Amino acid sequence: MDDSTDVQSQMVKHRFKITRVGVTGVKKPIVVHRPSGDRTLNATIDVFVDLPSNQKGSHMSRNVEVTGEVVDESVREPVKGLENLAAHMCDMLLERHEYASYSEVDIRADYFLEKESPKGKKSLESYKIRAKGEGYRKNEDVAKKAIKKFIGATVIGINTCPCAMETVKNEYKRIYPEFSEALEKIPTITHNQRNKTTLMMEVPNDKEVEVNDLISILESSVSSPTHEILKREDEAKVVMQAHENPKFVEDIVRDILSKCLKDYDDHPDSAHIEVKSKSEESIHKHDAFAERVTTFGELRE
Amino acid sequence: MDDSTDVQSQMVKHRFKITRVGVTGVKKPIVVHRPSGDRTLNATIDVFVDLPSNQKGSHMSRNVEVTGEVVDESVREPVKGLENLAAHMCDMLLERHEYASYSEVDIRADYFLEKESPKGKKSLESYKIRAKGEGYRKNEDVAKKAIKKFIGATVIGINTCPCAMETVKNEYKRIYPEFSEALEKIPTITHNQRNKTTLMMEVPNDKEVEVNDLISILESSVSSPTHEILKREDEAKVVMQAHENPKFVEDIVRDILSKCLKDYDDHPDSAHIEVKSKSEESIHKHDAFAERVTTFGELRE
Amino acid sequence: MDDSTDVQSQMVKHRFKITRVGVTGVKKPIVVHRPSGDRTLNATIDVFVDLPSNQKGSHMSRNVEVTGEVVDESVREPVKGLENLAAHMCDMLLERHEYASYSEVDIRADYFLEKESPKGKKSLESYKIRAKGEGYRKNEDVAKKAIKKFIGATVIGINTCPCAMETVKNEYKRIYPEFSEALEKIPTITHNQRNKTTLMMEVPNDKEVEVNDLISILESSVSSPTHEILKREDEAKVVMQAHENPKFVEDIVRDILSKCLKDYDDHPDSAHIEVKSKSEESIHKHDAFAERVTTFGELRE
Amino acid sequence: MDDSTDVQSQMVKHRFKITRVGVTGVKKPIVVHRPSGDRTLNATIDVFVDLPSNQKGSHMSRNVEVTGEVVDESVREPVKGLENLAAHMCDMLLERHEYASYSEVDIRADYFLEKESPKGKKSLESYKIRAKGEGYRKNEDVAKKAIKKFIGATVIGINTCPCAMETVKNEYKRIYPEFSEALEKIPTITHNQRNKTTLMMEVPNDKEVEVNDLISILESSVSSPTHEILKREDEAKVVMQAHENPKFVEDIVRDILSKCLKDYDDHPDSAHIEVKSKSEESIHKHDAFAERVTTFGELRE
Repeated sequence: MDDSTDVQSQMVKHRFKITRVGVTGVKKPIVVHRPSGDRTLNATIDVFVDLPSNQKGSHMSRNVEVTGEVVDESVREPVKGLENLAAHMCDMLLERHEYASYSEVDIRADYFLEKESPKGKKSLESYKIRAKGEGYRKNEDVAKKAIKKFIGATVIGINTCPCAMETVKNEYKRIYPEFSEALEKIPTITHNQRNKTTLMMEVPNDKEVEVNDLISILESSVSSPTHEILKREDEAKVVMQAHENPKFVEDIVRDILSKCLKDYDDHPDSAHIEVKSKSEESIHKHDAFAERVTTFGELRE
Repeated sequence: MDDSTDVQSQMVKHRFKITRVGVTGVKKPIVVHRPSGDRTLNATIDVFVDLPSNQKGSHMSRNVEVTGEVVDESVREPVKGLENLAAHMCDMLLERHEYASYSEVDIRADYFLEKESPKGKKSLESYKIRAKGEGYRKNEDVAKKAIKKFIGATVIGINTCPCAMETVKNEYKRIYPEFSEALEKIPTITHNQRNKTTLMMEVPNDKEVEVNDLISILESSVSSPTHEILKREDEAKVVMQAHENPKFVEDIVRDILSKCLKDYDDHPDSAHIEVKSKSEESIHKHDAFAERVTTFGELRE
Repeated sequence: MDDSTDVQSQMVKHRFKITRVGVTGVKKPIVVHRPSGDRTLNATIDVFVDLPSNQKGSHMSRNVEVTGEVVDESVREPVKGLENLAAHMCDMLLERHEYASYSEVDIRADYFLEKESPKGKKSLESYKIRAKGEGYRKNEDVAKKAIKKFIGATVIGINTCPCAMETVKNEYKRIYPEFSEALEKIPTITHNQRNKTTLMMEVPNDKEVEVNDLISILESSVSSPTHEILKREDEAKVVMQAHENPKFVEDIVRDILSKCLKDYDDHPDSAHIEVKSKSEESIHKHDAFAERVTTFGELRE
Repeated sequence: MDDSTDVQSQMVKHRFKITRVGVTGVKKPIVVHRPSGDRTLNATIDVFVDLPSNQKGSHMSRNVEVTGEVVDESVREPVKGLENLAAHMCDMLLERHEYASYSEVDIRADYFLEKESPKGKKSLESYKIRAKGEGYRKNEDVAKKAIKKFIGATVIGINTCPCAMETVKNEYKRIYPEFSEALEKIPTITHNQRNKTTLMMEVPNDKEVEVNDLISILESSVSSPTHEILKREDEAKVVMQAHENPKFVEDIVRDILSKCLKDYDDHPDSAHIEVKSKSEESIHKHDAFAERVTTFGELRE
């Protein structure tokens, strides 16, 4: 579909508004400025606007043009955070789709940070980051726009179950009453598993949120972060740390909410925040999941 | 995690409500009663409740127990529609999670219907169906519940682009002015592609919606339905039919909305409806997408 | 593409043989006869033949016709094992593609069996099964065919790491020398995780292999099977059992090979067998993987 | 699992060789030197060795260490082609796993090239590239190794069906005998669709293969390349070009083989080559697929 022919502007048969229309799965490399230097992120991007009831088709190539332009710009002038790129694109989309009153951009990318194992071994760890923008045209004044932006990340952690740990400990105490003291002092076996936890936060227009900080909040809220390289002693340390810190997915979500409230205490009440945690249960074939979708204001109540 | 130990009821460190907590990806075979006889659907099920701020953990095994019980019941007494099963589960979840004020069940399954090709050749065609339930506890009266249910389907169709068809026709008219009449009468080449379109509709508690009817609405709204077996003449027929019926993804969404308004004209204004259409563009590496999320009331305005 | 036009038989520009040509991802429900009664499996099917260098195109609709016919037959006369269906299809493919010297069919389906938890609670557990057929036309005699068939399954189990268990035990012994005896008697914490293990075995034409038996071999070879419903005591039991049985992915593969050699001791040396085991490591972001691809003859050496 | 404890070297219960053991899905950014400058590729890497029958476990952390080291090296000294990195890793793996006689590395990454639309509009197009290495220890001399390396790419193109085009043309000639000449001169409608085609080629140790050249071969062998941005005239051009060039998946595979034979005419007979082409059929719910797995020697016969 293209934007210089008349087909998109022809008479509409069924006059219904379209909530979102656009392109999904556009892949582009984007150069971003990060604390440790410029980085090229391989991004996957969705770009939407709305469509009023009297417009037959959206000019989808404009969405891809906007994407191409900001990507080209990023090579000359690396962007400061993907959320700013998303916000900028939302603004451009409202400029170019004169009939649209809403625009939306969603960007996902793999991301790497150098991290240390418990014994201090450094390695590049992989994360997923996601940025979102939403543009709203003010009806009274067609040139006036409100832009919202969001930044978030997903970490792969380890999660150990507190409930099974308690039950097993009691069972071993019953079997081995002579080892009660050891069982109180040394963590008991439980099921543990790969956990994927995601935090997504609105960034008020007058503030900055550093995605590396969100990753730190996420990694400090699972039973233990995971690491790509672990030699013997490091592996033991991670296992011990994870078992000293057993958590339900509910606990992970709540700990993250609590840290965000503290670290972003000047975020306005209206700012959106959502946290999801999924544990790929080792004793089940299904996953355990917890989620909170809310605002800073509701959390402060 | 389990529900007879005390860990889930222990003191909560950070007193935040959890929007949804539960299990995802539970696989079960469910026997449903269909117009053409009883069928076994291989379902993938997510089951959630909310969690108040003063409760540490949700009893997740209760979610899986509810699932197991309704599946067992379905063997003895096939269910009439997955949406009724989802609604029934939402009711049971509020019974068993006495602390919850919300419950949610999401069921997806492959589904098969015998269909005819244009030349009358019968074959089993595959679809995806999805049912959802939402349970709300009325605060004033703990035993009072409101249950909402939803049913929907996804079809794989073919979609031909009207815009490229018009541009190419004009281009050929320019190159071959002597063939103008032929170019007006015979459909011109354009890009066409696999299209996946989804309709999801609320089912008012005093009404029934037959998912086979939703599939018919969807298949009649793409450029042409697709077929697993097409011999020479059938294949030509499908290609011709698809090109006599070029459509944007926006057109597909609007045509479906229009048919739903007509076929379900006694649905209340409050009833939810959403339609998504995605074309896996043959000339691009990305997809084209359109979506409307709304109520019957808004559509009637 | 279709088979009654001449395009497929036109002159070939570049005269190269095609190893495999056909259709992938055909979805059909198949009725199979199982020890516990007839079951409908939702199968995803790939169907291929080879193509000689002088034939332009393969008649792909024949592949889908063969699929449709055997599926229809299965409703009237449930098939005894998907591998027999795959073998039968390979035979039919060589009949209908007179130019082909090879045919191949690959069928995957979700599968359910009633299983008991350690405490005797019954539930339907989900597995993946896979059947394969290969047809070979004997060159000397065009009507002579050799058909091979294969059956296999994938189970989701739990796997506990023996190496971390040993290291952590030694570390705790160092920290708490007074608890040495307890640490020797009670299993020590380690990382455990979701494990997916697959066994695929050739079925000699004069023998039968019951896929339920393969699933039993797989489940008895991981640290513990997984279960969809586990109340408190059951969950403790699974965790304890898994930790009494720590295993590398290499151990899982070898244990399965050993059991297959014993249980199928009259399988011929030429019979193919392959085993893969993947652990979705809870302490890493990556997976651990082990695989053996071999014949019964090589295993007997 | 780790490599300084003794567990991996303990007595083996069932003495079977393991074909491949290692880690899969390791994500790392790799800096490669490309004709247009240094590029950071986000790679997903699998790393395996074999395991003799008398060794209990493989030291998996060595696989991740090798990966980390070459990735760090790439930052200082960008690698010339992922296949060289894979080959180097295979060599290192045989050094560090002294018990192994085989090593294997598989690397996949998204990749971008600037391309022009038919009308000359430039945009960054996305591809997938894949490199593989295989290391073999010579039995007679433990220090002697043979290393094989492979490079390949996947492109997303458009594919138009020649068979339906012919049938539809004949049908229109029957309906409109007066338009026969137009129907002979102007391409007739047919189904077209997204096509994914992959070429993977062995790189002899004394030669270089530039992956950009493989991408050119792939893009020139589908009905038309695809483009992220197409304004009206460009879109028409791509549609027209694709319909002037209708192809079966079999044709795509053969054209690629033919070009490779010509462009790499000094590749030795033993060099491996494989080509796969999959069309996500717009008129069917399934895909069409063709594949050739062979050597340059066989192709030359």
